[in-house]
Parts: sequence; C-alpha cells; structure tokens
Amino acid sequence: MNSIPKPIQDLIQAFSRLPGIGPKTAQRLAMHLLTASDAVARDLSNALKDLKTSTTFCSTCFHLTTENPCSICSDSYRDTSLLCVVEEPVDLISIEKAGSYKGLYHVLHGHLSPIDGIGPQNLKIHELLSRLQPSNGSQKATMIREVILATNPTMEGESTAHYLLSQIKPLGIKVTRIARGLPSGANIEYADDVTLTQAMEGRKEF
Amino acid sequence: MNSIPKPIQDLIQAFSRLPGIGPKTAQRLAMHLLTASDAVARDLSNALKDLKTSTTFCSTCFHLTTENPCSICSDSYRDTSLLCVVEEPVDLISIEKAGSYKGLYHVLHGHLSPIDGIGPQNLKIHELLSRLQPSNGSQKATMIREVILATNPTMEGESTAHYLLSQIKPLGIKVTRIARGLPSGANIEYADDVTLTQAMEGRKEF
Repeated sequence: MNSIPKPIQDLIQAFSRLPGIGPKTAQRLAMHLLTASDAVARDLSNALKDLKTSTTFCSTCFHLTTENPCSICSDSYRDTSLLCVVEEPVDLISIEKAGSYKGLYHVLHGHLSPIDGIGPQNLKIHELLSRLQPSNGSQKATMIREVILATNPTMEGESTAHYLLSQIKPLGIKVTRIARGLPSGANIEYADDVTLTQAMEGRKEF
Repeated sequence: MNSIPKPIQDLIQAFSRLPGIGPKTAQRLAMHLLTASDAVARDLSNALKDLKTSTTFCSTCFHLTTENPCSICSDSYRDTSLLCVVEEPVDLISIEKAGSYKGLYHVLHGHLSPIDGIGPQNLKIHELLSRLQPSNGSQKATMIREVILATNPTMEGESTAHYLLSQIKPLGIKVTRIARGLPSGANIEYADDVTLTQAMEGRKEF
C-alpha cells in the first residue's frame, strides 16, 4: 500500500468506515476528489465539520434541528391535533417529502427490541406520553386528538406500535396505524404473501 | 426539504456530488454520521482538508506523492531498466498491489481520445520520451531496457499503446504490451469473442 501517499490512504480509510462503502469504492471516491475541483472536497470537509456542532434534537418532538423547538413544532400553520409517531428522523423526513401530512411528529429514536436490550425506557416513549397527558399542565397537550403510529411495518415496528397502543388507548385518545397494502407501482405477481393478505383485508369500497 | 436541518442538507448535497452516490445514499451516509462516533466525521473532514494541500505529482513518473521524487522513483531496490507506462495513478496502485512488478513507472494521466480533443500534448508523453532519450543528458535515461505498455485493453488504451510504440521503437528500446487473455477465475462459456480470440492467439506451450 505504500504506492498510495499517506493523505490519500487516510481519506480512503475514512471513507471505508461509512456504511456501504468498501475499499474499492473508497479508493474511487478519493481519486475522484483528487481530480475534481477543490470546492468538492472543501464543501464536504466543511459540512462534516459543522454537522455535529450545529445540529441538536428538538426537545418537543426529538427531530434533528438547528433551533429549539424545531421548525415543524413552531410552525403555526400545522394541525396541532394530529401527532405522527415515527422511529427515526429519516422516517419523518420521508413523510415530509411526501408532502400530504400537515400535523406534528414525535420521533422515538428506535423501536422496541428485547433481543438488543432496547425497552420502552430507551426510546422517547415517556416523552411521548407526557405530550399526550393533560397532567403535565401544558395546554397544548390537551389538544392532540389523534396519534398516528407510523413505525415501520417490520416485526419490531409492529410490536412497538402495539406497545404504544396499550399505553395511549387508556388516555382516551384516538390511535391509528398507517395503512398496509401494495405499494404504488407494485406487481401483484411479485408481492409477498403477508402484503397480499393485508391488501385484501384492508380493501376499500371503490 | 425544510424538514432537514441546513447543516445536514449541506452534507447530503456535498456527498451527492461524488460519483456513484445519489440523493438516497447521500442521506443515508449523513444520517449514519450523525449517529456514529464523532471521530468518523472528524477523520473524514480532516482527510479531505489535507488531501489537495499535501499531495502533488512526482516530477519524474507523475504518480501521486507527498515528496518529490516519489517513493517508487527513489527506491534503490527497484529495477531501473524496466519502465511500465500506465494511464492513471490508480492503475499504478493496482499493479503495485499485485506485488510482482519491481521496475519503475510512468503515469500518462489519460489516454489519447481525439473525440474528446485529447492528443499527445495533453498527456505526459513528451515527459516519457525525455526519460527514454539519452539527449536529455541524464545518465539514468540511458539505462531503460524495456518499456512495458500497460494502458487499458480498451479502444483508447490500445490506440495510445500503438502511438507510444511508434514513438519509442525508433529509440531502439524494447517495447512490450501487457498480456491479453482470459482473466483468472473466468468461464470460457461467458468470455467475449475478442477475449477468446486473444486467448487463443496468445497461447503458450504448456
């Protein structure tokens, strides 16, 4: 490896630590940056430097933000009676990108997974229940009419949703789960059994 | 996109400019860096910052290096009578990794490509011929016995090799071309016609 100068080796090493980037891809990226305009490497370097120092989590919904509360929580045009619960910030970002939902969010930062030792106390579940319970004295808390459970349709996501249902239901708040069925553009021919069963069970009058 | 804080958007943007990284992968990398240890982002940031300031090209062989001449050119254990000509620094690195070649190198920094307006003057061909011609007064230049043309087995690489042959042959230096044939581990069944023809033509007594 001493045919590769140390600074390039360092960069290849640093890229290799990212998910989905193996040594070959890391080398290709490093070589690209050597020949690309200076701005490409500089912008990436600066963006990485600023990343952790400038971002934090919203103390209300726990989404990533630069100010607290975040732009979604402080947006007065949003429907504050709707609360969508997601596992990770990326899920929130995806739902926002879709553009149809205009309520508030709550990011759990994970899902229940007893095998990995992740219980309710490791997620932002206590904080979620505080937002829903009038007992915390906040006026806003009394306004949530419906909690939409948008955890992933995986085993862990489902069990997290069931746990949340058991906790929220006693508070007298409507709890819904995002719809299951065939994704847009899918082929029935290639759909798996569980998805097809759920698509049939969840059918609506046309 | 305003559901993604600005520093993260900047990072996604910076990653997206790299080859083979689309917006989804860029987002995944950025989200990984947010949750990964601080060192991952910091090391990458530093490696990027140092990259261009600390690397240059060897004035003899034009490989990437931190000092001039590079570690290969200044390695006294190498066979200075052998000169391997490659298109790019990555080619040199690959041959070095293979570990069997112990001669010197010359990096052209590209291949002839009239359609892209790349002629001999755009490559390090003049510098290559200077290394081979005794007329430049250097004692070292007289010592090269054999030039191995290791340009890629593509149309551009082949025509670059042919051009170099026409320039070097008159100097009375032996010119060889890297062998063509079936790659190690290949299936004859799936080999293309050109490769099979070359494998047959290049056959050796067993």
